[in-house]
Amino acid sequence: MARPKPLSGFPELLPDERIVEQAVLDTLREVFELHGFGSIETRAVEPLAQLSRKGEITKEVYVVRRLHADEADGDELGLHFDLTVPLARWVLEHSGRLQFPFRRYQIQKVWRGERPQEGRYREFTQADIDILGQGELAAHHDVEAPLVMLEALERLHERIGLPPVLMHVNNRKLSEGFYRGLGAEDTPAVLQIVDKYGKIGAEATAGLLVSELGLSAEAADKCVQLATIRGGDAGFVEQVRSLGVTNELLEEGLGELVALVEEADRRVPGRIRADLSIARGLDYYTGCVYETELVGFEKMGSVGSGGRYDSLASDGRTAYPGVGISLGVTRLLGPLLARKQFVVSRPVPTCVLVAVDGEETRDRALEVAAALRGRGIPTEVAPRADKYGKQIRYADRRGIPFVWFGPLIGEIKDIRSGDQQPADANDWMPDAADLHPRVLPSE
Amino acid sequence: MARPKPLSGFPELLPDERIVEQAVLDTLREVFELHGFGSIETRAVEPLAQLSRKGEITKEVYVVRRLHADEADGDELGLHFDLTVPLARWVLEHSGRLQFPFRRYQIQKVWRGERPQEGRYREFTQADIDILGQGELAAHHDVEAPLVMLEALERLHERIGLPPVLMHVNNRKLSEGFYRGLGAEDTPAVLQIVDKYGKIGAEATAGLLVSELGLSAEAADKCVQLATIRGGDAGFVEQVRSLGVTNELLEEGLGELVALVEEADRRVPGRIRADLSIARGLDYYTGCVYETELVGFEKMGSVGSGGRYDSLASDGRTAYPGVGISLGVTRLLGPLLARKQFVVSRPVPTCVLVAVDGEETRDRALEVAAALRGRGIPTEVAPRADKYGKQIRYADRRGIPFVWFGPLIGEIKDIRSGDQQPADANDWMPDAADLHPRVLPSE
Repeated sequence: MARPKPLSGFPELLPDERIVEQAVLDTLREVFELHGFGSIETRAVEPLAQLSRKGEITKEVYVVRRLHADEADGDELGLHFDLTVPLARWVLEHSGRLQFPFRRYQIQKVWRGERPQEGRYREFTQADIDILGQGELAAHHDVEAPLVMLEALERLHERIGLPPVLMHVNNRKLSEGFYRGLGAEDTPAVLQIVDKYGKIGAEATAGLLVSELGLSAEAADKCVQLATIRGGDAGFVEQVRSLGVTNELLEEGLGELVALVEEADRRVPGRIRADLSIARGLDYYTGCVYETELVGFEKMGSVGSGGRYDSLASDGRTAYPGVGISLGVTRLLGPLLARKQFVVSRPVPTCVLVAVDGEETRDRALEVAAALRGRGIPTEVAPRADKYGKQIRYADRRGIPFVWFGPLIGEIKDIRSGDQQPADANDWMPDAADLHPRVLPSE
Repeated sequence: MARPKPLSGFPELLPDERIVEQAVLDTLREVFELHGFGSIETRAVEPLAQLSRKGEITKEVYVVRRLHADEADGDELGLHFDLTVPLARWVLEHSGRLQFPFRRYQIQKVWRGERPQEGRYREFTQADIDILGQGELAAHHDVEAPLVMLEALERLHERIGLPPVLMHVNNRKLSEGFYRGLGAEDTPAVLQIVDKYGKIGAEATAGLLVSELGLSAEAADKCVQLATIRGGDAGFVEQVRSLGVTNELLEEGLGELVALVEEADRRVPGRIRADLSIARGLDYYTGCVYETELVGFEKMGSVGSGGRYDSLASDGRTAYPGVGISLGVTRLLGPLLARKQFVVSRPVPTCVLVAVDGEETRDRALEVAAALRGRGIPTEVAPRADKYGKQIRYADRRGIPFVWFGPLIGEIKDIRSGDQQPADANDWMPDAADLHPRVLPSE
């Protein structure tokens, strides 16, 4: 066949880029498990009826059908577009075999038929953490979930030079209580309009609130003013109070948001702020909501979003309220990789290439390789018994730092420095920094 | 919603089962990387035209379509049904940026619209290793690839008690040369019939060769006799020769197969045997072919198959011959998990639960947890400030082995033994065996 072309919206990584992604996924897993989140995966498909409940998202779903489908195939299926809707289904299906609060992380691909553009993909990897209760879930988990994600992102910042993040947080109770306190009853509609504030500005937002929802100019103005409030500590509370709106739900939301901001300030200073413009389009959030920007890459939009949802999963008798946050791994890495934000020390796992003198001594090279691997050193044997110079160039082209010559007691050459030393394959070790590929920030 | 039902053919794992799967995938990755295989992932979809080239497999493909597709969507897409066809496409697409021989492993889900039954799934995880050359690929890689997979399976046998395996190997050149030596020209057709030998027996196979392909009774009988030859060492060569067929391609295949069996016997004794009945249905194999059975679970069929393919990837000017083997991770684990073949020490990553005296001292518990996590100990904080007995029962239900009481310098209780000791959160460590969940064979 002719050289195939990429499919727009379906990004694929080259080996060195994949090493960056693996470093990110390994770190996420490490931090999530340190906090007691266990891994689950759900199937890629859900009955289409489940996926199309959410109005707005319907048009983005991919339908999946056997090429030769027959009646026995039953329900129409679609690829999942996030990991939250499948989690709700999975928890209901298995609730009898789980302990609550149930803590899980889930790292999987999801699919959306969106128009592809930078940072918007049709296939992408998400990494989610969620905590679900049975019947009830304490508010302190609404503080916990975003802090676990912030800790993971902070570790990635320190470890591989991921840009620092700023998480913007708000609370649905706060906004809804505020709108109700102003006499607006259709609070989802208000939220949807206020959600446009960042794009269309204050005046246009207030105008829509008046023209579409019939709010008074004064009420519309207060809704917009609320959305302008920001703060890295509890000071934002006074700004809300100064707008003169009182409502019980508003007070509850304020309390929850203060608890989150104050705890975050203690644990990961400078990485979170209250931002009362944050609405999150989806309809299932009922409390705290989170969005996360990469500092210096704000144009990418939120790379880590989530919130509290009290009514997403319910079997009619029991509700399973939850809170979670989803990191857009592909969304985060795509633009950073395109900008060469990271350097990978080599694009292959291999640390040592064992040179081969001739095909008749390949066995000896295999013995050396087995001895090195037995002590955890990734090793390849040269594919051809070329002249040594050619074998060294082969290692160099692949980025392999060391070449072994001779039998078990032989010589090892660091091809970067040219230094060559006698070595015993049963005890030689490379520097720890050379054992595996490393990911570093580019300068 | 009512309690959802599972979708037949789309298996999902509970947290303890997922821990087994993670242990398997971690071990595969470790061994593959020790041998210099780097990770890649390909998109889940391929143009349908690519997926339907292979005749027989067409009916099993899942077609993927945007719910509201329009003309801009271009080619019809299907979910990939294996990881070899996408690899061939990916290598052609990126050949200018790869070093050859290119060594990659790939662990991803694949989808097939097959009738679901035990060990047959519609969504399942495969773990593949392949080595591809540019223009040429030395025959020693045909020995290397199956041995890497055998080494990984052997490590799983030792580490978590996966049943031992037996790999059955054959060589297409051997069979094709043999058939040609008998005067049969449509060797793929002979192969397809001989492939049924295991299911329909010798007599029926010979009958089909006569009735469908017009072979003489004697030639048909020799084809069947060839398929009965087995051997764990080079002894099988004499059995082939005793059938009195001579052909150049046959000799080449015999040589390659002997090299594989002898090298395997040195490296992983007792885990491989020549089995001249192995044909592999797919049409792209051109040399060695491999199938792998779990000892004691032979009815499951092959869990690890592959072979040499010289013509799968070609851009018209350059061919990229390859050799690889694919492990059916879900296929392997599904029946073993259903039979409770493994024990997991706990279903959560959490090693320590920090008890909470009251919501006003939750902060103190968070400090203890942060100190423990800082030293790599997976830790949760109790969700409610219940009485201690209730918090201990909570830990017990989740399988968490330790409960922490009090501040940083507090007490740690092993709830399995009841033993409680003073401890400092800045230096206490559990036994290494308790740090993370472990997977063990059940007795």
